[in-house]
Amino acid sequence: MTQEKEFPIVNLISMPENPLKTIYAACRTCYSADYPINIWENATDNEKMLKLVKRVLASGHHSTIEHCQYVFTISGVSRACTHQLVRHRHMSFSQKSQRYVTEKGLFEYITPNTIKKAGFEAEYDEFMNKTAEFYEKMINQGIPAEDARFVLPNAATSSLVASLNLREFIHLANIRLCTNAQHEIRIMVKKMCDLAIEKDSWLAEYLVPKCEALGHCDEIRGCGRKPQKI
Amino acid sequence: MTQEKEFPIVNLISMPENPLKTIYAACRTCYSADYPINIWENATDNEKMLKLVKRVLASGHHSTIEHCQYVFTISGVSRACTHQLVRHRHMSFSQKSQRYVTEKGLFEYITPNTIKKAGFEAEYDEFMNKTAEFYEKMINQGIPAEDARFVLPNAATSSLVASLNLREFIHLANIRLCTNAQHEIRIMVKKMCDLAIEKDSWLAEYLVPKCEALGHCDEIRGCGRKPQKI
Amino acid sequence: MTQEKEFPIVNLISMPENPLKTIYAACRTCYSADYPINIWENATDNEKMLKLVKRVLASGHHSTIEHCQYVFTISGVSRACTHQLVRHRHMSFSQKSQRYVTEKGLFEYITPNTIKKAGFEAEYDEFMNKTAEFYEKMINQGIPAEDARFVLPNAATSSLVASLNLREFIHLANIRLCTNAQHEIRIMVKKMCDLAIEKDSWLAEYLVPKCEALGHCDEIRGCGRKPQKI
Amino acid sequence: MTQEKEFPIVNLISMPENPLKTIYAACRTCYSADYPINIWENATDNEKMLKLVKRVLASGHHSTIEHCQYVFTISGVSRACTHQLVRHRHMSFSQKSQRYVTEKGLFEYITPNTIKKAGFEAEYDEFMNKTAEFYEKMINQGIPAEDARFVLPNAATSSLVASLNLREFIHLANIRLCTNAQHEIRIMVKKMCDLAIEKDSWLAEYLVPKCEALGHCDEIRGCGRKPQKI
Repeated sequence: MTQEKEFPIVNLISMPENPLKTIYAACRTCYSADYPINIWENATDNEKMLKLVKRVLASGHHSTIEHCQYVFTISGVSRACTHQLVRHRHMSFSQKSQRYVTEKGLFEYITPNTIKKAGFEAEYDEFMNKTAEFYEKMINQGIPAEDARFVLPNAATSSLVASLNLREFIHLANIRLCTNAQHEIRIMVKKMCDLAIEKDSWLAEYLVPKCEALGHCDEIRGCGRKPQKI
Repeated sequence: MTQEKEFPIVNLISMPENPLKTIYAACRTCYSADYPINIWENATDNEKMLKLVKRVLASGHHSTIEHCQYVFTISGVSRACTHQLVRHRHMSFSQKSQRYVTEKGLFEYITPNTIKKAGFEAEYDEFMNKTAEFYEKMINQGIPAEDARFVLPNAATSSLVASLNLREFIHLANIRLCTNAQHEIRIMVKKMCDLAIEKDSWLAEYLVPKCEALGHCDEIRGCGRKPQKI
Repeated sequence: MTQEKEFPIVNLISMPENPLKTIYAACRTCYSADYPINIWENATDNEKMLKLVKRVLASGHHSTIEHCQYVFTISGVSRACTHQLVRHRHMSFSQKSQRYVTEKGLFEYITPNTIKKAGFEAEYDEFMNKTAEFYEKMINQGIPAEDARFVLPNAATSSLVASLNLREFIHLANIRLCTNAQHEIRIMVKKMCDLAIEKDSWLAEYLVPKCEALGHCDEIRGCGRKPQKI
Repeated sequence: MTQEKEFPIVNLISMPENPLKTIYAACRTCYSADYPINIWENATDNEKMLKLVKRVLASGHHSTIEHCQYVFTISGVSRACTHQLVRHRHMSFSQKSQRYVTEKGLFEYITPNTIKKAGFEAEYDEFMNKTAEFYEKMINQGIPAEDARFVLPNAATSSLVASLNLREFIHLANIRLCTNAQHEIRIMVKKMCDLAIEKDSWLAEYLVPKCEALGHCDEIRGCGRKPQKI
């Protein structure tokens, strides 16, 4: 797969015009006698806004960041990866259906690095070709796509539109940037984070693996980045 | 309350740049072999997009509209109203706290029309004045705001930043535009709907009371707009 | 797979002692001056309880049935099926991990009826055997299970503990008992419904495909059970 | 209010027959090749089950405890308290409606201790009496209950049936057992915890304020129970 080196393909297609200002207005509304529309309209001092937002987040008041939704398009991730991703129940997903979309020719698939390094790549590619042939044979004999796909492997890629608010985004980063996370989802989430941080650099402090937020590692096997809790 | 005629105060402070295009990309992703970023970038024909989106919504596939979040500022609604509003668990809220914000002088409050029409307004206003005096007396004697507020009435207003995705928005409209809904929440939700429809007129078909969506009234007591289901 | 005729394997391992009484207490609490504990303790007349509950459900007040949670164990369903199931975001899942559980010998898999009927079964079984051999070969060469599984097919089975409240249960039945739903998930949800109905026969009226609840079919292609909405 | 010393009134009316066994089956399902129904049926060693469950919870894998739902009846809490409680969006609520239930005579209300200690109790009681008289007068003149209630204070009590799974229960305890939480909700949640711990003593370790779970205090103003994070 020639494009694979860029996989997964992640793009940020929609986000609020001004996340910091939105969050600031939300935070101030809780503690102010002023109308929120006035707070919103008078909010111009980025430094002051950021200072308040950081203080509120430090005290664990995370509902204030739910008002910012990010929408991503994602392609070139395996169904193994998407089966994990869709477990994030605070996210919204629109995923390419293997029931309704019939694969033509060799389907797109992911080859894990460990398989390449162990010298299995040629055998793996051949396996995928054989699988595609069997799939196509069944389709040609009138087997519906939703049943023929039973032979398609976890490696086959999928595409999604996925959206999440900033609270869930931080949670996603905390869980999936951990070195124990599956390799593809880790790269995919890293790309999502980078795209958001590119727009708002102050997010870099929050879109981090959980050990950075906790100050220690709570995994059974750690990677050494942070000390494990005893 | 001189401003009351404009109550509640509702403003739309953030929404996606292009809801229709976002929803179209989500719908197409489910049924297309193309990458969603390509679908997104090539989507230019509004009429075609709208046609697909309407067909998908008609078939009940509502997860596709979760990718559009609307953020509102709301003021001048009673705590009676907000206690109902915050029951919408798919929404996000940042609400003015009566624990942390101390009322100064006469608090802002709502007077229901039925109370005005029955000639109780003067007595009602006097009651609110007396309540404010008692509240202030307790505050001045060192009672914390969070306890002094136990005398504040349901009529006292609150402010919020509230956000919701389009799926929940349609649900909110379905439930709260019904003539059986509480009067304030009905006006507030109507204003929210009008602000969204102003931006995207095609939403007018969806941001309606549930009887319009169902084709009949499922309330125990109907208003006659649609026939009741027998 | 000799056990396949019984697949999927579904068991109900936990549910409330008295769902009807729980829902009745919830419904009455909304409209009564009495304490809910008194309502609960004095609720003995099943017929009266059922009458109220049916009336409340008919008026769309479905939050009252969220107080009843059902817990199921599920095995013998394909990963194609579970990828759909876990999209129900109001459910809770604990699923067998292909990252942490290494398959030994020939993995368990599902063969769709259309594949059997078209005479592909022998070729399908051989394909699965070859896949298991390649998987095992990679495992033996030190490829981690989480990467070797990239060759495992959608047909491979999974196991879960899955729980949901009655509101989501009715939604699940509405969507997944439809003849357009994927065949396995339809059988699985049917078994879940039957187990609950066995305990509380009055649920039979609610655990039905959506066309029964709507009175018409809202699918693009219907099965003829109910007339399609024009 | 003579009953007040026992307020709030909290009862546990429904819970799983065996939470530990349910959670153990969920945890084991993730890491076992065995069918979950077999894991469930063979689970008899409480000590072994508890050991695994504690290890899984320590590693942050909290979805496994969502399979246990607790249902409570609650009375004798102020509307100030319930407005906070219903912000827990993972909980389910059925609450007494002030729109549909008309108060007769003096409504039930809460008197905060600070008001008693400052010598305001007589004035407070008189205020409540006057409020009840005004409310009743409006009701008698045909004002609907939903509008007359605009004069009812935050102090007026409410009743609910409330349910939550164990994951949300631990979150609720973490947040609401904090000494900075509002006094009523703290006592109410403490009673909920005590009722659950009475059934399963091992829960005592988890149904604690957040500082116990974090090892430090993340509030802006701490109570000294745990050192504050600097």
